[in-house]
Amino acid sequence: MKISLLGGTGDIAEGLVLRWSKVGHEIFIGSRSEEKAKGIASQYIEKLTSLGIEPKIHGMPNAEAARESEVVIISIPAEYAVATVEGVRDNLSNQIVVTPVVPMAKRGKAFYYTPPSIGSAALEIKEVLPDGVKLVSAYHNLPAKELSDIDINLDYDVVICGDDDESKSVIKHLTEEIPNLRTLDAGPLDISSMIEAITPLIVNLNVRYKPMHFSVKFV
Amino acid sequence: MKISLLGGTGDIAEGLVLRWSKVGHEIFIGSRSEEKAKGIASQYIEKLTSLGIEPKIHGMPNAEAARESEVVIISIPAEYAVATVEGVRDNLSNQIVVTPVVPMAKRGKAFYYTPPSIGSAALEIKEVLPDGVKLVSAYHNLPAKELSDIDINLDYDVVICGDDDESKSVIKHLTEEIPNLRTLDAGPLDISSMIEAITPLIVNLNVRYKPMHFSVKFV
Repeated sequence: MKISLLGGTGDIAEGLVLRWSKVGHEIFIGSRSEEKAKGIASQYIEKLTSLGIEPKIHGMPNAEAARESEVVIISIPAEYAVATVEGVRDNLSNQIVVTPVVPMAKRGKAFYYTPPSIGSAALEIKEVLPDGVKLVSAYHNLPAKELSDIDINLDYDVVICGDDDESKSVIKHLTEEIPNLRTLDAGPLDISSMIEAITPLIVNLNVRYKPMHFSVKFV
Repeated sequence: MKISLLGGTGDIAEGLVLRWSKVGHEIFIGSRSEEKAKGIASQYIEKLTSLGIEPKIHGMPNAEAARESEVVIISIPAEYAVATVEGVRDNLSNQIVVTPVVPMAKRGKAFYYTPPSIGSAALEIKEVLPDGVKLVSAYHNLPAKELSDIDINLDYDVVICGDDDESKSVIKHLTEEIPNLRTLDAGPLDISSMIEAITPLIVNLNVRYKPMHFSVKFV
């Protein structure tokens, strides 16, 4: 598939790019800066080539990356996510958009989930999407470090939600191409707050149980 | 230890009573109705005796159960939890109180976390506790059915939070007497909403992936 990662330059983006490249997907790295996007794309290509993989990875501005792809991952910090989606809005028509966005803040020694007044990052992003664009909430709780080491089997659950079964099915399939992730569909988009809130909980655990990088499994 | 379970007549109470009895703790079953508490206590005693265990289990009104014990589990549905704690308040002085309380509601086909305006059930309960009584948030996400079958090893994580390290340490110890539960301390009491919110998420998964009864592990 053609997959774009907006803000494809950090956090979980690297692991997703490497792992999806490995199974043959074409990747469009988006950034506010075309130069930065092309630079990061080159790094990913170099890394994959050294592993004997021939990737199809392109760097370009966010809006172009969104236009080129069938699946758009909003790999953007919460404070910039809505503005970024607004900026690429005119290039979205029938793509599946995926939000792993988690608004959180540190107060004292702990991290807290800080959803917008509408209830979740997912619902806030949904508000600015054109009609017809499907939104799936996924990939909030993957540990970036383990994800980017493509030799590691990720024995974790990816809990997703969304209002369109077909797009959830596409994301389930994409997810489960990454060994050994399992997708669990938790229901409609408006339960996303309960998935997003797990991330600051995991961050708190990571701080207390250093050097663990926790993810989650439902057993 | 002397442990009371207020509302010890349902949900996770049975499993905790059976499993803690098995390792020798003295249990005080509380209910609004003394008769009901005594009736349930008899059932637990019968069940344990048939398994060759000699339990120390007593049934009594909630307030008496709270007074007799060192640890008080608020095993009460969210809508009655605060009123129940207010009702036993005069019998609390230096106990450790444990809240597994999760406010949730079904809308349409999905379950949602519905915290009170203060942010979580734990913070709401804290408001009505006397000074000096320590509150620990724990046991929200254990599957009642598996918990009550004492032959099953529970390979789950119990995420706890609270503001007093000593009482969290007591609850960790009590929890880990149950094979094979692991306790993870996620921080201060006011992060409880992030633990509580996992329960409706699990309920949604249980509905979709019937007959699974999910619990959670952080891996």
